[in-house]
Amino acid sequence: MEILQVVGPMVCTHRHPGLETMPLRILQDTNGKKQVAVDTIGCKPGNWVFTISGSAARLALGKERKVILTDLTVGGIIDFWEENESKVSS
Amino acid sequence: MEILQVVGPMVCTHRHPGLETMPLRILQDTNGKKQVAVDTIGCKPGNWVFTISGSAARLALGKERKVILTDLTVGGIIDFWEENESKVSS
Amino acid sequence: MEILQVVGPMVCTHRHPGLETMPLRILQDTNGKKQVAVDTIGCKPGNWVFTISGSAARLALGKERKVILTDLTVGGIIDFWEENESKVSS
Amino acid sequence: MEILQVVGPMVCTHRHPGLETMPLRILQDTNGKKQVAVDTIGCKPGNWVFTISGSAARLALGKERKVILTDLTVGGIIDFWEENESKVSS
Amino acid sequence: MEILQVVGPMVCTHRHPGLETMPLRILQDTNGKKQVAVDTIGCKPGNWVFTISGSAARLALGKERKVILTDLTVGGIIDFWEENESKVSS
Repeated sequence: MEILQVVGPMVCTHRHPGLETMPLRILQDTNGKKQVAVDTIGCKPGNWVFTISGSAARLALGKERKVILTDLTVGGIIDFWEENESKVSS
Repeated sequence: MEILQVVGPMVCTHRHPGLETMPLRILQDTNGKKQVAVDTIGCKPGNWVFTISGSAARLALGKERKVILTDLTVGGIIDFWEENESKVSS
Repeated sequence: MEILQVVGPMVCTHRHPGLETMPLRILQDTNGKKQVAVDTIGCKPGNWVFTISGSAARLALGKERKVILTDLTVGGIIDFWEENESKVSS
Repeated sequence: MEILQVVGPMVCTHRHPGLETMPLRILQDTNGKKQVAVDTIGCKPGNWVFTISGSAARLALGKERKVILTDLTVGGIIDFWEENESKVSS
Repeated sequence: MEILQVVGPMVCTHRHPGLETMPLRILQDTNGKKQVAVDTIGCKPGNWVFTISGSAARLALGKERKVILTDLTVGGIIDFWEENESKVSS
């Protein structure tokens, strides 16, 4: 599971129906590379979170007989994290 | 889910029957790396989109008893996106 | 789905029985990184192809009650492609 | 399966219910890139471990009718490992 | 499927029961990056092999009603391979 920081919400009115109205967040790693994840936990910009990818991301949102089409879901908010902790110490 | 920009359609007459006649798009990230995705939303060259990968990409196209053999499907068009937003801010 | 160029066939007499006698191809990306894929389309050295990865690669070869153990399968031959099209334009 | 070194536990009180109270560990590769994994083996900071990713990570934790939503699980502690063994020998 | 060279066996007495006593090998790519794979073919140090990843790696080891928890399995030994063949020709 990856460690990423929340940038903010992603506005996307034109989306695949399989994502329903799930809240989407833009996250970035320590190099600034951005990804999009579904958030059911309510993370805020600046929070450091870890993300669940692949088929587990989809199961994390499973409601009865419905499938939410995501490949990345926020798994939790990390209690204490400093950005430079995750930099290469080389 | 990744954030990519639409380059244009991909012409591919000789393809696996499991892809049927699905429209294929060439997408690229901010480093210029290109990938191919199935598009059911109707994105245009220049649009910034996010993509669904893995088994979710396949489920996104599921029709009754048919399987579309993709590992990348356009999930939605992002309303506002500036290319330099997704660059490394370092 | 990735865009790769066919280098040639891969000779591998000592292989997992789950791959049967499937034709294997060596493919490379624009940086020269090589991968191995199952080819059911008949691509030739020099062709630019796109590849299907993950569980979709396996389903692409599914015969009745048989499973072919691949994680990469050629999805189609691209009609027009120039190597420098896929380089970083920066 | 990847080879990673244990940094320490990850404190995360606000987490997805699908992870239950599974112990989470922060691991890093030889470049210092960090990831989060579920640990059922009891690895200690400094241990070199290998990790199981994807759907296998989830199955590794499967209890009857329960699904633990992870994409990375510690698979074992390596008996002998020197950090510089895993550096590029070029 | 990736092309990797066998470094040698991996000694790991403390492992997840889902891996049983499967033989584990340390493999490396041409940059020296190491990974761990299950080997049922009997590859030797120095051999160049290709590997099957993801859920296919697991199915490659499937016995009746048993699941082996791997995400990487040796798929075959390549008949002829020179290390510099896989370097970037640029």
